[in-house]
Amino acid sequence: MVNPIVVGIIGAGRIGRLHADNLRAMPSYKLKSIAEAMMSDELLAWAESRGLGSVFAAGEDILNDPEIEAVFICTPTDTHASWIERAALAGKHIFCEKPISLSSEETLRALQIAEEAGVLLQVGFNRRMDPSFRKLKQLVESGELGSPHIVKITSRDPQPPGESYVRSSGGMFMDMTIHDFDMARYLMDGEVAEVYTRGANLIDPMFGRCGDVDTAVITLTFESGAICVIDNSRKAVYGYDQRVEVFGTLGSATADNCRPTTVEVSTATSVTRDQPEHFFLERYNRAFMDEIAAFARSVRLQEPLICSGRDGQAAQLIAEAARASYVSGLPVKLSGAGAGLSEMQAL
Amino acid sequence: MVNPIVVGIIGAGRIGRLHADNLRAMPSYKLKSIAEAMMSDELLAWAESRGLGSVFAAGEDILNDPEIEAVFICTPTDTHASWIERAALAGKHIFCEKPISLSSEETLRALQIAEEAGVLLQVGFNRRMDPSFRKLKQLVESGELGSPHIVKITSRDPQPPGESYVRSSGGMFMDMTIHDFDMARYLMDGEVAEVYTRGANLIDPMFGRCGDVDTAVITLTFESGAICVIDNSRKAVYGYDQRVEVFGTLGSATADNCRPTTVEVSTATSVTRDQPEHFFLERYNRAFMDEIAAFARSVRLQEPLICSGRDGQAAQLIAEAARASYVSGLPVKLSGAGAGLSEMQAL
Amino acid sequence: MVNPIVVGIIGAGRIGRLHADNLRAMPSYKLKSIAEAMMSDELLAWAESRGLGSVFAAGEDILNDPEIEAVFICTPTDTHASWIERAALAGKHIFCEKPISLSSEETLRALQIAEEAGVLLQVGFNRRMDPSFRKLKQLVESGELGSPHIVKITSRDPQPPGESYVRSSGGMFMDMTIHDFDMARYLMDGEVAEVYTRGANLIDPMFGRCGDVDTAVITLTFESGAICVIDNSRKAVYGYDQRVEVFGTLGSATADNCRPTTVEVSTATSVTRDQPEHFFLERYNRAFMDEIAAFARSVRLQEPLICSGRDGQAAQLIAEAARASYVSGLPVKLSGAGAGLSEMQAL
Amino acid sequence: MVNPIVVGIIGAGRIGRLHADNLRAMPSYKLKSIAEAMMSDELLAWAESRGLGSVFAAGEDILNDPEIEAVFICTPTDTHASWIERAALAGKHIFCEKPISLSSEETLRALQIAEEAGVLLQVGFNRRMDPSFRKLKQLVESGELGSPHIVKITSRDPQPPGESYVRSSGGMFMDMTIHDFDMARYLMDGEVAEVYTRGANLIDPMFGRCGDVDTAVITLTFESGAICVIDNSRKAVYGYDQRVEVFGTLGSATADNCRPTTVEVSTATSVTRDQPEHFFLERYNRAFMDEIAAFARSVRLQEPLICSGRDGQAAQLIAEAARASYVSGLPVKLSGAGAGLSEMQAL
Repeated sequence: MVNPIVVGIIGAGRIGRLHADNLRAMPSYKLKSIAEAMMSDELLAWAESRGLGSVFAAGEDILNDPEIEAVFICTPTDTHASWIERAALAGKHIFCEKPISLSSEETLRALQIAEEAGVLLQVGFNRRMDPSFRKLKQLVESGELGSPHIVKITSRDPQPPGESYVRSSGGMFMDMTIHDFDMARYLMDGEVAEVYTRGANLIDPMFGRCGDVDTAVITLTFESGAICVIDNSRKAVYGYDQRVEVFGTLGSATADNCRPTTVEVSTATSVTRDQPEHFFLERYNRAFMDEIAAFARSVRLQEPLICSGRDGQAAQLIAEAARASYVSGLPVKLSGAGAGLSEMQAL
Repeated sequence: MVNPIVVGIIGAGRIGRLHADNLRAMPSYKLKSIAEAMMSDELLAWAESRGLGSVFAAGEDILNDPEIEAVFICTPTDTHASWIERAALAGKHIFCEKPISLSSEETLRALQIAEEAGVLLQVGFNRRMDPSFRKLKQLVESGELGSPHIVKITSRDPQPPGESYVRSSGGMFMDMTIHDFDMARYLMDGEVAEVYTRGANLIDPMFGRCGDVDTAVITLTFESGAICVIDNSRKAVYGYDQRVEVFGTLGSATADNCRPTTVEVSTATSVTRDQPEHFFLERYNRAFMDEIAAFARSVRLQEPLICSGRDGQAAQLIAEAARASYVSGLPVKLSGAGAGLSEMQAL
Repeated sequence: MVNPIVVGIIGAGRIGRLHADNLRAMPSYKLKSIAEAMMSDELLAWAESRGLGSVFAAGEDILNDPEIEAVFICTPTDTHASWIERAALAGKHIFCEKPISLSSEETLRALQIAEEAGVLLQVGFNRRMDPSFRKLKQLVESGELGSPHIVKITSRDPQPPGESYVRSSGGMFMDMTIHDFDMARYLMDGEVAEVYTRGANLIDPMFGRCGDVDTAVITLTFESGAICVIDNSRKAVYGYDQRVEVFGTLGSATADNCRPTTVEVSTATSVTRDQPEHFFLERYNRAFMDEIAAFARSVRLQEPLICSGRDGQAAQLIAEAARASYVSGLPVKLSGAGAGLSEMQAL
Repeated sequence: MVNPIVVGIIGAGRIGRLHADNLRAMPSYKLKSIAEAMMSDELLAWAESRGLGSVFAAGEDILNDPEIEAVFICTPTDTHASWIERAALAGKHIFCEKPISLSSEETLRALQIAEEAGVLLQVGFNRRMDPSFRKLKQLVESGELGSPHIVKITSRDPQPPGESYVRSSGGMFMDMTIHDFDMARYLMDGEVAEVYTRGANLIDPMFGRCGDVDTAVITLTFESGAICVIDNSRKAVYGYDQRVEVFGTLGSATADNCRPTTVEVSTATSVTRDQPEHFFLERYNRAFMDEIAAFARSVRLQEPLICSGRDGQAAQLIAEAARASYVSGLPVKLSGAGAGLSEMQAL
């Protein structure tokens, strides 16, 4: 890739800065500008330490900068759709963090505008690039596992977020499980026909006060008849628990947690090994790099997007159905989840 | 235990002979008689090789033999309840294979008769004695895992049974998943409030012809709010897959498969280890011994039964609810599963 | 095997009783008599609990009993050779515990007498029958690993024996490492050309007072050029550590420790699994059964002995050389270790 | 660290370029110049792709550049000592690849000059920074394992180098095992008193023609009495095998191989997982980063060097003793390995 892709970042919170560091380390990108509505001394110090002191610009200026080819949207979720629309109209390729929005109507409109504008839109479901989950995907695609019958996803956070985060998160299914919904679709290469959710508020009454759950088991039935089961918890005291299993007619494959070291210690009282990598920054460290490397290949080499706007939309629709199932206590059918024409039906 | 318990076995099929061999090896038992309706040369040869040539007797004679203290009921399932009733009326302690019956009314009546007769009735949910699952139980009981929130049970057979077996099995939930229902109750020490089943016929159309499924994911919601998810398959090509995980507020514990050896082989093309123990006779070899050792302690030392008739009944009621959920596609509520007074309600 | 082999046991200490229990459980054997020089109430109670109250006899009577075909020699090591000779002259097949003796001359004479008498003589290197080590052997024999280049044996006891045991043990190499010397020969199917020992007294000065070591690394060079390294400790606080690795031109195979359960527990402070099986009675439980099953097949079905007197002798010669190397600090050459004509040469 | 350390690299082969990439990614360094005697189109293309087109300079110019504070010596081994001397006289801090030289006299002189010049000299034993081995080191230092008695190091390459490499390598002990000698000293924090080597030429006669071995087991006896055993092979067909175990009075710790993914695949014929990371660039990827991060902290923050010139010298002396033991077939004593005053004595 002779010419690096000139990019701007909209939003310099935790995830925006993560992408900034990764973009700087990759020869295929040139990070030109960063927009952040809430400047702080701490942000300036961060930028200074990276030699990025003069990089700040208004979001609109980034969109109007003809040198910039692509923008990374890392703002709060409720502004994603609006930025997608404006960036698309400005002709920029778009990398947008997940979820696209908290409203399926907003998402649909943003996707339509991006598609009409002919820009690329990648959604930040970074776990698709995790080396272990990619290997699972390859095993499924190669046919080595035969037809998948059962997919099991364990996804548990090491500690619950604070109340303000929970209140603006769109709820656990939209905020946390949405990664697992995407993983299920990614591995199965198919669409979900029905969702059944058992949710509970077992960890902290705060979640209940926010109308949210902190523990859930969600059953997805695929159009193929295959069944996926996801279990979530907002608090796994032993660390970030991220495991996936695909069971098919010819075999089964499991992806276990990653751990900082391979050391096992045997003493008079115990045999111990490391807890899992602490949280998503550690566990998906490489996946964050690889997703933007893939985006560069899509922009420069016309490779298919590893996770399109339609993929983002589909996961969002499943999250909405999961919520509806939790509220009603009944399974919820989805139709055409991947086609952008879904209708949810309570049985 | 100075005096061995004199026992008779009713039914000398595969499981009856297994118990016979185990009873012979244990000083706390004396195997006196075996009843089998279908004598064969192969059965006689088996008996001969164990020096049991003169052990055969009619079932009724066993019940009438005043020296015999306990009977092991190893006949086809549809005769269990009848034998329980007759053995109870004859004053014998009873070890009965699972399930107690295919009808909750029959089971209820058999339990009532046994209780009125004051005899012990243990049901053969042998997995409770598996060393790894016992350790999980101890971890839950000791409080080391805190309050359990999620229990996951994977239970997959290495190969499907034949059509005649399937037709008389009572269906996968009653025949196979019933072990997992018992395991869930055992580990949680609580009762199931609701069952939701996703079943499918993905392996062999024969199951569908028999009105049965071969693949399922079942969600159990406990009265405590904890959630248990069971995944079943009739055909795991890599072997008998038996894993359990308990996730609680203070930690999580997993019981993995057992394998014949610990050998790992690394070559230019692969790194391999053993497949799981082939099937239940291998995997639960020791559990089969330990369940009858426990029965002896209950008979002689008044230790509590490790798995009572009421436990057998409770698992059966969950199996019936799982079936009802599969048929209706809706969650099914259970009330008082452990109290023998259950009413199933479709939502 | 229609007729069980009628056997007598000479010596009813821990290992003699272990064999007695195993013999009783196997239809191919009939245990007729046990000789023990030191009768005790505790021994009588043990026998009583197995219904063996009338089984005791003098050793000479066992040898003179024409019904008895085979004897198990389980006496203290310094009497093994003498009992082998007498049993051989009486025409009995012999299963003898390891080591055959503490003197290579005694061993040589005993073997010659047994060979002249035409009786079978199996030595109790039970680890050859451990399922994991058998699998290693099969992998070597099948050629799957190619030519073996390096063999690594870790063999550590959970706790050191008492001083009286140490004083009569023949030293660590003869008492403990001798199992590993046999394992090396078994896996390599070849003879040792040179031995180099680094021994140390690091655990308890008692070993030094007895002229013994408690820690050692021993390098065996095989005639083929392959190298085997054994590491020993008398005290591994985490339990009985028994691992073997074979590295060859086409691959490597490792046999790890066995553990009572497969449970792994993850908490806020640690991720733990079971310590290894406690000691040899637990770890080699099945190997003790399988070695006498193999002996029965050699007696009745003329299968080759799984561990002959010559194998016992070879391991003993290596143990003597290891000791000589420790004393001199120099490598020691062996010639014809397997041929009964060894000469040790200090370089 | 406000001011980045301005560095020059002498030697732009594989390892020089690796350091160049790592230096560029770290804010604490500024890579100013690279010297390479053998320019090539391929090297220029590599530099171009990193925007380093104008970075090349003569080695002497780098030493004379007053802005440059530190040099990385990545030239062929036989020029290391000379560059160390010149760089030291020019007042540059030095990071030098291993080994320092192939001659203990050369190494001694270079160290003396560097010490007199008062510059820092770090040797590139990168494995000290491997996360798993660092954890072993911390476990030893913290006392959790008690007094170390036995250290086991397995170090096997995935494929043998070519003949020209072998001829100039200084032999396997100096080229490959030297890493393990350093690891042994690092973990034990002590000096080696005696070395015994069993080497063999089992993989390729080419090694023999070069007077070298391809397979070895080396026993190191530490002054403390602890014993370390290293096993090496130039060809492990399954990949780069890098494992370490420390066994002490209070426990044992093992560091296993790292693998690209955690995926395990179970099919009808096998249960497989990944082979180890391919070779040192993959396995020690992070260690290469961390060793130069540590060097920066030594230069800027006066933290102790993680691996000093004296450490490099000590490993080299052990390698020479290992070679002498291989040639003589006898153990070789070392005295004062860490003091720069060693004398080797054949027993």
